Amino acid sequence: MEADVRDEKGITVRKSEDFSEWYLQLVTKAELADYGPVQGTMAIMPYGYAIWEKIQEILNSKIKASGHSNAYFPLLIPESFFLKEAAHIKGFAPELFWVTRAGEREIGERLAIRPTSETIIYSFMAKWIRSWRDLPMLLNQWCNIARAEIKSTKLFIRTSEFLWQEGHTAHSTKEEAEEEVMRALGWYKELAERYLSIPVLAGTKSESEKFPGAVYTTTIEAIMPDGKALQCGTSHYLGENFSKHFGVNYLDKEGKSRNAHTTSWGISTRVLGALVMLNSDDKGLVLPPLIAPIQVVMVPIFYSDDDRANITKVAEQLKAKIERRGMRVRFDNREGRSPGYKFNYWELRGVPVRIEIGPRDLKDGGVVLIRRDTGEKRKVKNEELVGTLSKLMKEMQKSGLKRNRLLMEEKIFKAGSYDQFKDGVAKGFVKAGWCGSADCEARIKEETGATNRLVCTDEKKGKCIYCKKETETVAYFARSY
Amino acid sequence: MEADVRDEKGITVRKSEDFSEWYLQLVTKAELADYGPVQGTMAIMPYGYAIWEKIQEILNSKIKASGHSNAYFPLLIPESFFLKEAAHIKGFAPELFWVTRAGEREIGERLAIRPTSETIIYSFMAKWIRSWRDLPMLLNQWCNIARAEIKSTKLFIRTSEFLWQEGHTAHSTKEEAEEEVMRALGWYKELAERYLSIPVLAGTKSESEKFPGAVYTTTIEAIMPDGKALQCGTSHYLGENFSKHFGVNYLDKEGKSRNAHTTSWGISTRVLGALVMLNSDDKGLVLPPLIAPIQVVMVPIFYSDDDRANITKVAEQLKAKIERRGMRVRFDNREGRSPGYKFNYWELRGVPVRIEIGPRDLKDGGVVLIRRDTGEKRKVKNEELVGTLSKLMKEMQKSGLKRNRLLMEEKIFKAGSYDQFKDGVAKGFVKAGWCGSADCEARIKEETGATNRLVCTDEKKGKCIYCKKETETVAYFARSY
Repeated sequence: MEADVRDEKGITVRKSEDFSEWYLQLVTKAELADYGPVQGTMAIMPYGYAIWEKIQEILNSKIKASGHSNAYFPLLIPESFFLKEAAHIKGFAPELFWVTRAGEREIGERLAIRPTSETIIYSFMAKWIRSWRDLPMLLNQWCNIARAEIKSTKLFIRTSEFLWQEGHTAHSTKEEAEEEVMRALGWYKELAERYLSIPVLAGTKSESEKFPGAVYTTTIEAIMPDGKALQCGTSHYLGENFSKHFGVNYLDKEGKSRNAHTTSWGISTRVLGALVMLNSDDKGLVLPPLIAPIQVVMVPIFYSDDDRANITKVAEQLKAKIERRGMRVRFDNREGRSPGYKFNYWELRGVPVRIEIGPRDLKDGGVVLIRRDTGEKRKVKNEELVGTLSKLMKEMQKSGLKRNRLLMEEKIFKAGSYDQFKDGVAKGFVKAGWCGSADCEARIKEETGATNRLVCTDEKKGKCIYCKKETETVAYFARSY
Repeated sequence: MEADVRDEKGITVRKSEDFSEWYLQLVTKAELADYGPVQGTMAIMPYGYAIWEKIQEILNSKIKASGHSNAYFPLLIPESFFLKEAAHIKGFAPELFWVTRAGEREIGERLAIRPTSETIIYSFMAKWIRSWRDLPMLLNQWCNIARAEIKSTKLFIRTSEFLWQEGHTAHSTKEEAEEEVMRALGWYKELAERYLSIPVLAGTKSESEKFPGAVYTTTIEAIMPDGKALQCGTSHYLGENFSKHFGVNYLDKEGKSRNAHTTSWGISTRVLGALVMLNSDDKGLVLPPLIAPIQVVMVPIFYSDDDRANITKVAEQLKAKIERRGMRVRFDNREGRSPGYKFNYWELRGVPVRIEIGPRDLKDGGVVLIRRDTGEKRKVKNEELVGTLSKLMKEMQKSGLKRNRLLMEEKIFKAGSYDQFKDGVAKGFVKAGWCGSADCEARIKEETGATNRLVCTDEKKGKCIYCKKETETVAYFARSY
């Protein structure tokens, strides 16, 4: 048998030793993403994109079932649109890519590549909404977004272009808009926890950390193995801030013109970074079954052509059975690759369950199952295979979230003193009183590198960790990606 | 009952009288698309986008079943990439949008927004392909594309940004690559004809009309009611033209380095323009059932609250039955809108079948069905409804294509003389001998406005319609969008 020229493709560092290098190797070697030629850009490779497609499927079903529609809006936004909302342009100006020429011509007003689409979408909503009958208007788009990154690139986590969905809705009342904000945040929390096994904290951002132009921003935040927070999705209540500048108004039932209350919410390919960081080990990915593009991989083991033919026949029959139960299965019958090569290949890619079938298994009328998460091996009779797999998928999905939840809880600290606070944010989230002032927030950031991630909802009383004032606000602080 | 303030929203010109104005009114009033603030841009509105999602579903199933994978590549392409393939940059230079600034910084090498992704994708393939084992590499991406349009904008048909899928594949042999070119063209032909009821001619482009950088380009071309051709999809054999410049090579089984043979193929939101032009009448769209986001709409007719309650109950039951049979059905129980308003509303949007339920229908245990294409009305008993609808969908799908095929055939002319040729291209396609010279092609274009749309495969002998030379090439000429 030919040598496995790519056996060197495994990850060469430990997750616990060099987290950053381990992440880079995992993402590229498992063929999730690769660096592009322009600084800050990436390609999402087929295997990574297949995971993104699963996320799209999950969110689209929620988005559509609740009466939202997908649509598509222009990539290029005139500069004047950004200037209408002062906070918005201030927040995004440093990151905008500007188009100044088309062919040989100079463009009159320069055009920004969308960093987010509030302004351009409101210019359409202003035309499309006339009366209360047109509300709520519930739109969503799946698209690419560009934000020039000056800091060093990190695949999925920090790139100058990424993919996302952005929901944009207009409502006649504040209450209805605020419900929408929480509805979207709820989807994100469910996606993260139930499907991606990423436990998150949900809450509201501080004034300094909110979306530029929002009344307030809600967020879900996860904590990575290196103790840094990763924002996984945000949902904003924009009040009338945008609608008044863009003319998104409607005639109410009394014929009076009113500004709409708007919301926006988005989740991006960034969440794939969190998925990788949390669901993985030294050997590579450990995908939660619900999100895995391939849930079961079958690897044949044979020493003769006779064995090969017999094993292939049985494997194909079992594969068909597994598929009929709705599971995503691959039979890896590639020639010229050893079983060992295939084990490593699929372990790196995080396929939840591997099935091995060799000549002895054939004789016994069974197969060997290997769990990717625990490495546990067991023999299963062919007639019990589908049932066992189905149960195993549920079990693994549950235990993955449980494991990650414990890891998160271990990384949430309380701080009685500023010294304890500094210790804590070096390792994870710190829950601490905060007087609410942007000044204390800025000083904490400057001195410790930690930002205010979100305001706590279950605790309401404490002393500001910085200025010691009594306060009714408790917040989570952490360094972040 | 409140007045129907929007009854004026119907199309106010006839398709046969002012085709261009009729098209614009249909696209905007049926809420398929709308003009953007920047010249040449558009928004694809929810109803138009829902049709695009159906197209994505159909093509994705073919793309994936044949072993292709979706992926995503960067939007921004360095200028130097375009300069590597001389014909490619020459073809695209006038249409490129250039990014020259990011935030406050000047970008060193300016970046083009992708007008198509050959160059950027080959820069990745060059890294990803090492040996014959990695071939064929079969990739596809769904994305936005920007090409600065100087001519006047036409929604879907001519805009500076549009959505498409672009397949990019690398093969070890010419034969395999050429098979791939024809496979993709076959999908496009099937999509156009079987699903969208757009009959097309399939063939090869002339040298002057081929994709910049291709060895040859194959195309499907449809003819619109105004006699102009509309290119609906293209598939290119690129030979080694790109692979040699971008280093897309592989080690063959003997260890020798060889250039890959590559292909690319794409179909865009432009095809929605053809769908609208061909499947429509003075009242609006007439969607083929297979592509219709809503296949059946139910409109209740009542004069009292009692009727309303009874009709709603029966309608909901029938709706559930129709859904169970896998049909897409909407019960239009909006308040404050008259049945007449609703009839017009759904006719404009081309829903294939309307169901009316009034008090008398209720008593008779039936409903009234109205076909959108023929206007034919019939009473159907409730217990026969689902079966009738199901049969009707198939019938309408078939008859739509048949009707459009006849219309196409009426618009294909033969020309014995140049005068006849000029007459013909004012009304449709002309099939005529062509000596094969770019010079005759250019003169024909200059004098008649008609371009060479594709080379004919069923006829091979004639005299060049321009220079009268004997030739073995017969081609289709037409004015085009």
